[in-house]
Amino acid sequence: MTIEKNGTTDDAAIRALVDGFVNAIRAKDIQGVMSVFAPDVVSFDFGPPLQHGGGEPFMKRWQELFESYPHGIEYEIRDLTISAGDGVAFSHSLNRVSGTLKNGQRSDRWVRWTAGYRKANGRWLITHEQVSVPVDVKSGKAVLDLQP
Amino acid sequence: MTIEKNGTTDDAAIRALVDGFVNAIRAKDIQGVMSVFAPDVVSFDFGPPLQHGGGEPFMKRWQELFESYPHGIEYEIRDLTISAGDGVAFSHSLNRVSGTLKNGQRSDRWVRWTAGYRKANGRWLITHEQVSVPVDVKSGKAVLDLQP
Repeated sequence: MTIEKNGTTDDAAIRALVDGFVNAIRAKDIQGVMSVFAPDVVSFDFGPPLQHGGGEPFMKRWQELFESYPHGIEYEIRDLTISAGDGVAFSHSLNRVSGTLKNGQRSDRWVRWTAGYRKANGRWLITHEQVSVPVDVKSGKAVLDLQP
Repeated sequence: MTIEKNGTTDDAAIRALVDGFVNAIRAKDIQGVMSVFAPDVVSFDFGPPLQHGGGEPFMKRWQELFESYPHGIEYEIRDLTISAGDGVAFSHSLNRVSGTLKNGQRSDRWVRWTAGYRKANGRWLITHEQVSVPVDVKSGKAVLDLQP
């Protein structure tokens, strides 16, 4: 009973965290975005290198993303699936980032998102994430136009 | 105390699972590989589409990988970091797959690997994974030659 109750509560808390994350991205609220990540997050991000840490460089990547969409950024998370245990959780989803770029071109991309969470002092934070698109092995090109 | 003890035990159990996974890949033991995944695993795999389910098509992808290395496949997992809670866990690592391809060319690639685990009937299984390399946004090319 207790486990089920905690599971449900934790699931709801993580869903609220992700909702806040999406709203912060749409508002280009950099502090709101940063608030969902642990300071020592390990990010396997969309762009190189293989992995990033948190802190100032991590924040700078988000700011650059925001700046690349001067007319506003649209963000959507689909099929968010959460597995939450006692203090450890992970989620996976398909995330769509779209908008009009600086050069006037429309950009619309679906990425796969996996996030790992840990609970400390009653609060869930993202301690790890991976963001990617698949690769066409023969051409070596990222496949950027896939849709769910 | 109990939580710490369970945490350590679960960490060791997952580490053993991953060790078995690596050994099964090196031995091209398809049943050994499949045994670490839940039947309904959601895989955000290296190649398209955005996501895959488990079962027969999932096994076929592994078999095709094995066949692409007719002279043997080398596999290494570096910096495996595990967060294990009560019945839910996730891990991240940098995995190297290498060997000589059918055409005689040497292939050597580091990928980012995130895995989500659930424990059922006392046994951990991978219920979700994401495997990728970063993308160079300007060229749209996958960056396949990064090293940790």
